Amino acid sequence: MSKEFAPTERTKVKRIPKRGNFDRETIYSILDEGFVCHVGFTANNQTFVIPTGYARRGDTLLIHGSSASRMMRNLAGGIDVCVTVTLIDGLVLARSAFHHSVNYRSVVIFGKAKLVEDENEKLEALYAFTEHIVPNRWNEIREPNELELKATTVLSLPLEEASAKIRTGDPVDDDDDYALDVWAGVIPLKVQAEKPQDDSRLKDGISAPDYVANYER
Amino acid sequence: MSKEFAPTERTKVKRIPKRGNFDRETIYSILDEGFVCHVGFTANNQTFVIPTGYARRGDTLLIHGSSASRMMRNLAGGIDVCVTVTLIDGLVLARSAFHHSVNYRSVVIFGKAKLVEDENEKLEALYAFTEHIVPNRWNEIREPNELELKATTVLSLPLEEASAKIRTGDPVDDDDDYALDVWAGVIPLKVQAEKPQDDSRLKDGISAPDYVANYER
Repeated sequence: MSKEFAPTERTKVKRIPKRGNFDRETIYSILDEGFVCHVGFTANNQTFVIPTGYARRGDTLLIHGSSASRMMRNLAGGIDVCVTVTLIDGLVLARSAFHHSVNYRSVVIFGKAKLVEDENEKLEALYAFTEHIVPNRWNEIREPNELELKATTVLSLPLEEASAKIRTGDPVDDDDDYALDVWAGVIPLKVQAEKPQDDSRLKDGISAPDYVANYER
Repeated sequence: MSKEFAPTERTKVKRIPKRGNFDRETIYSILDEGFVCHVGFTANNQTFVIPTGYARRGDTLLIHGSSASRMMRNLAGGIDVCVTVTLIDGLVLARSAFHHSVNYRSVVIFGKAKLVEDENEKLEALYAFTEHIVPNRWNEIREPNELELKATTVLSLPLEEASAKIRTGDPVDDDDDYALDVWAGVIPLKVQAEKPQDDSRLKDGISAPDYVANYER
């Protein structure tokens, strides 16, 4: 598998080319840090954008069907999708309104998503979703039974056509504006885990395991 | 304007109807808390999902055209879009793999987005974007000049067909599973602002104003 995705007509970054990135390792690191994607598809001449969970497994993106399933369940042959994952790293405050921006890392993937129908593959996908969001969780919990696997919709999307867009660092102001008496810089933003909340029906004597108490994204 | 959006064939929440919400105030509060949306549209038979900034102004969503502009700039007549805003509130850890979930609030909007071409309207949109992301910022910074306004792509989308989906609270396990010796509960997630980073070219003697130093989303 090549280290770089080949740019295509639809993944080329046209407006600010220097923000474009086709490096597989970079793209996978963004996919592995996020856990909610936005799946775009067209059905009955209507475009839908649905947020849902995902996990990467090698060169495949596994997508949790969830609410998209009403559109997709009859489409075992596959459906063209555009899947986007966006991480927000900071607010970029320039001296001029025009140059305000956001530091972000996003990935856009194009391809044909197929329904995963095999039960073992579904089981592996559920494992991947769970471990992707909360590592070490799977070993503790009850695994899915046959009925639950049947009720689970999983889509599989090959990672063949993808690109990243990344903005980092300071604001970039017009030369003249650097003389203005205005604070400029970046407010970093981070997804922070707060103190875990016990389920109201938690059995006595069970406390949050380390991987929960010290959860970091 | 009615307090509830009317459900339509495409905004009805079919899979878990109790998560659906058409209340205008609820939907607007979600839009006002987020600041990045995912815009879905179809061009040349291809669905695109593009992350970009937005702000709400009354019953209109203003969308920053940015990278979507290559697709949209010739479409002054309007383009059908699906705009989705997703806020992640927590990870829901159940006793069974199947019932793991995410607490979230999302809004999906359908409609026809139009290019904003009037310079005053564009100026008002830039004001709205800036103040939506960083309240109190506008008064300090250099306002856009004519060239910058020309270079700015703004789309306007009437808030007429929208719905929210919300999940809150504890995991919901199968009755039998509550007896398992497994921790269950919620890991709350929050977007946290970290210490502001001065621009490397910041003039001496300027420190971050209160609205930056104490920024909260």
